Amino acid sequence: MVNTVKKLLIGKPLKSTELGEQKLTKTKALAILSSDALSSVAYGPEQVLIVLVTLGATALWYSLPIAVGILILLTALILSYRQIIFAYPHGGGAYMVSRENLGPNFGLVAGGSLLVDYILTVAVSVSAGADAVASAFPFLHEHKVFIAICFVLLITLLNLRGITESATVLSYPVYLFAIALLILIGVGVTNIMTGEVPTYKHTPVGTPVAGISLFLILKAFASGSSALTGVEAISNAIPNFRDPAPKNAAKTLAAMGLILAFLFSGITFLAYYYGIAPSSKETVVSQIASQTFGRNPMYFFIQGTTALILVLAANTGYSAFPLLAVNLAKDKYLPRMFNNRGDRLVYSNGIVTLAVAAIILIIVFQGNTENLIPLYAVGVFIPFTLSQTGMMLKWIREMPTNWLPKFIINTVGALICFVVTLMFFITKLAQVWPVFIFLPITVIIFHQIRKHYLAVGEQLRINEAVEDAPINGNVVVVPVAGLTTVVDASMKYVRSLSPDQVIAVYVGFDRESIVQFEKKWKERYPDVRIVTLYSYYRSIIGPLSKFIDLINHKASVENYSVTVIIPQFIPKKGWHYFLHNQSSLMIREFLLHRKNVVVSTVPFHLKK
Amino acid sequence: MVNTVKKLLIGKPLKSTELGEQKLTKTKALAILSSDALSSVAYGPEQVLIVLVTLGATALWYSLPIAVGILILLTALILSYRQIIFAYPHGGGAYMVSRENLGPNFGLVAGGSLLVDYILTVAVSVSAGADAVASAFPFLHEHKVFIAICFVLLITLLNLRGITESATVLSYPVYLFAIALLILIGVGVTNIMTGEVPTYKHTPVGTPVAGISLFLILKAFASGSSALTGVEAISNAIPNFRDPAPKNAAKTLAAMGLILAFLFSGITFLAYYYGIAPSSKETVVSQIASQTFGRNPMYFFIQGTTALILVLAANTGYSAFPLLAVNLAKDKYLPRMFNNRGDRLVYSNGIVTLAVAAIILIIVFQGNTENLIPLYAVGVFIPFTLSQTGMMLKWIREMPTNWLPKFIINTVGALICFVVTLMFFITKLAQVWPVFIFLPITVIIFHQIRKHYLAVGEQLRINEAVEDAPINGNVVVVPVAGLTTVVDASMKYVRSLSPDQVIAVYVGFDRESIVQFEKKWKERYPDVRIVTLYSYYRSIIGPLSKFIDLINHKASVENYSVTVIIPQFIPKKGWHYFLHNQSSLMIREFLLHRKNVVVSTVPFHLKK
Repeated sequence: MVNTVKKLLIGKPLKSTELGEQKLTKTKALAILSSDALSSVAYGPEQVLIVLVTLGATALWYSLPIAVGILILLTALILSYRQIIFAYPHGGGAYMVSRENLGPNFGLVAGGSLLVDYILTVAVSVSAGADAVASAFPFLHEHKVFIAICFVLLITLLNLRGITESATVLSYPVYLFAIALLILIGVGVTNIMTGEVPTYKHTPVGTPVAGISLFLILKAFASGSSALTGVEAISNAIPNFRDPAPKNAAKTLAAMGLILAFLFSGITFLAYYYGIAPSSKETVVSQIASQTFGRNPMYFFIQGTTALILVLAANTGYSAFPLLAVNLAKDKYLPRMFNNRGDRLVYSNGIVTLAVAAIILIIVFQGNTENLIPLYAVGVFIPFTLSQTGMMLKWIREMPTNWLPKFIINTVGALICFVVTLMFFITKLAQVWPVFIFLPITVIIFHQIRKHYLAVGEQLRINEAVEDAPINGNVVVVPVAGLTTVVDASMKYVRSLSPDQVIAVYVGFDRESIVQFEKKWKERYPDVRIVTLYSYYRSIIGPLSKFIDLINHKASVENYSVTVIIPQFIPKKGWHYFLHNQSSLMIREFLLHRKNVVVSTVPFHLKK
Repeated sequence: MVNTVKKLLIGKPLKSTELGEQKLTKTKALAILSSDALSSVAYGPEQVLIVLVTLGATALWYSLPIAVGILILLTALILSYRQIIFAYPHGGGAYMVSRENLGPNFGLVAGGSLLVDYILTVAVSVSAGADAVASAFPFLHEHKVFIAICFVLLITLLNLRGITESATVLSYPVYLFAIALLILIGVGVTNIMTGEVPTYKHTPVGTPVAGISLFLILKAFASGSSALTGVEAISNAIPNFRDPAPKNAAKTLAAMGLILAFLFSGITFLAYYYGIAPSSKETVVSQIASQTFGRNPMYFFIQGTTALILVLAANTGYSAFPLLAVNLAKDKYLPRMFNNRGDRLVYSNGIVTLAVAAIILIIVFQGNTENLIPLYAVGVFIPFTLSQTGMMLKWIREMPTNWLPKFIINTVGALICFVVTLMFFITKLAQVWPVFIFLPITVIIFHQIRKHYLAVGEQLRINEAVEDAPINGNVVVVPVAGLTTVVDASMKYVRSLSPDQVIAVYVGFDRESIVQFEKKWKERYPDVRIVTLYSYYRSIIGPLSKFIDLINHKASVENYSVTVIIPQFIPKKGWHYFLHNQSSLMIREFLLHRKNVVVSTVPFHLKK
């Protein structure tokens, strides 16, 4: 039944050999891996203007030099990640770079920060999408949380169906959004060139502004840099590309960089030239679109695709999180299960973990996740800084031919990223402080997990030098609750094993029943020793446990093994389990986990 | 850890032999078993007036003859249940009487309806208590559901601590309530006799009333009869009394009847004489109290104890539900677990089930459980009618000496109860219809449960006539995932068993690892046959299951037993389980439930 529903929802299982067919072409990869980065265009330029407008409308021209700075940072990041892709062609991005060049702890900080960040991406973008739906249809407002959760479930399901399938469905909206903004910028710039837009609307570049400071410019710059989140996703997801994977990934990264740069500059320029000030009532993109087209279908097309891409930004998290988790799991910093491919060859445990965590965040914040945005930006810029610094060290250490320009690119990138990270901490400490709590905790957990795996590995390793003495004989203990066909079947089995000693144990709650049972037992199994235990507190496990300790003690002296054989009848239907005290089950689990005995269950399958 | 918390909450476990000390004296039994019945005085008389006042204030005098009718019904019920107590001294009340005299299905209708009713009692009375608290402290209003749940948890905890303990704590409020009302009635009647209350306030008895009808009188009568719910509780709870239990129970029942009759008549009389009309703003008891005492401390004492007893009415459910469940479980109509006594010798499974069900009701109805009251009354009057009818048949069938007066008592009782039940269906169908759904469902579930137990019993019964052939030999299958100390320990154990055949099975996900493993295995265990299976879909259970089928088929031909020995390492800490794919566990459960093989787990306890 469960299997049928599963097949219906995520499709029939795929063979491991079909993995190759599940890889992505560049166009599809671009769509699903760049949705996060591209969606930032919808709010990045606005973030810059929001900071600048605090000094009045005359300060808005500063958005142009700031945009130039952001483009430089973008270029540095793209070039740097291009180098990372070729240097670490199996994915892992910032985590791998930092681990290799700065040491494991920096790797874990980068990895942990990105993992948490992808959860935030999903929660924030899906909540933004639910807000957009609720704005369009106000009666849905009180169901915002429910809508957001539905979005998460939908994207989760799509991703569980496999990479190609989700890429096919999700690539349309991404390209539609890019095309919509390209048209907007194209028409906008044409209008300006044909002189349709009056020049007096904007303050000329260079106008002096009262109160301007480096701090404020840096703050605006940091806010605008949030548009660069998502740039790292491709470097984590290289294994999802068709061969030659690194080359294809690098090309996709370049394409994403170009589109992002063009859209970001275009929107920033139009906003400046139109003299648009940020408003709490209308987004900057919406203002540009309505000034360019009026409220015609083209305007609604732009607004619709923008809302859509905000939701789909979540999908980048779905592509990058499971692969990053795989890299951490391979290094034993995360549970091994993240390494398993599900029915559709995707890392389904990663996908489901991401979904559950995002849903918890959405419920805890009741869908009001805007305050998480700065946290989310910091969570990206910490690994940005670490990976660029890591690359710097790599070039210095390895000094391949032509290393200097590469070194310079990474140094510039590292410096800018570091400044941006600092700015976030200085200007948004109130929202960003949780980083100082969850990052150390995450790193500690990573280490605890690895410590456990190493300890287990050591204990599981066979030491050829130590020669164990063989077992001298077997003692079998059979807890019985009555004389039934189930016990009969178990005793038949015990006899076939012909162990050295068999002891049946009966735990009774009153003296009378014990005497009676002993008599009946001796009639049926005169050759099998029966031990009866009286339970003062109506517990079966208590007296049984003490008895096993006794047997175990004797057995260990003579190097005998102790096997507890538990007769258990297996009901035919699931609900029948409610009708039986699960004594066999509880005894089994207790003995397995607490005592050094082999636990054998002899099942007796009920026929009706 | 869990054990420590449990001990802290419910106290240290009691020995089975201490059961005698846990029995109740008459005074304590009266307190905990009559709280439901006595609390009805707080709203029963008011229910009558609410129906009558629809014809105007002149109709209120009808409350007197109606009260006489209710007293007659009460007398019939008390006498009848007294007879039931002696006839069925092991408890079970209406369920036992109906089952014995009318047949199992009527018994199940009576039992099922009472079980559901006790759940309703708890939900309704506790919600009423939460309402009272919220009225006193309005800022708690939005936490009503939470408060109600806290009440349930508190009463549950008290009951889990044992009967004597809960009786000691809960008897004070019950007696305080009775005393408070006795004082109220005493002072009220004295005031009337000394002429302090003007006579013009009430319409004289016999005043003709326009529009009065038998239907309306019966409706008022039925509403007032809801004050009699809870009268049956003692007959279910006889086993909780000290010896001689039936005699003590009968005396307690008589005492409860007298108190109930006195309080009910007193309140009805004062309400009539004071000319009190029911109001949505103030309860009738509150009106009487404030007219008698003014708003002095005595008034608040009466109001406080009334609120308290409304909550404690729930406790009657806690005393009667588990014992009724025991009776049904003994007859195999309910899961056997209801028969187990917990640490403190109470039937804790019944108590917890009742609590969970009541909490679910409270949450579903968000604490607005008033609409459940008629349902609750019907749920009592159906078993009342059935038990009285059952007793009628018993007398006719057995005809003991002096049977006629007993027969007449039960006949009168049966007729009145039947009329009251009918009135509920006619006048409150909108609230009472769920009975027609849940009662048949409950009865069907009871039968399904019994059918299963009978089928299991039959299959477990040893048939001496059938002589089973002994097992000819053993095949041992060991699924292995690698070469580790865990596998080593298991192989050592397997060798000590010296079975007829040992097969190690390895499930691999790619051809290369399979070849490698095979080679390594043959080096270490050249004498043990290894079978390798290639899994197309990355499932271990799939290929293993097919292989076991094959082995099973061969083994059954030669009457060999098949034992699957599963090496499993047991982590030291609970959270470590998250770090390991639970393959051993899943294989074990799958094989036990689906295949006819013995499943042995060889534990390897990790030391760190």
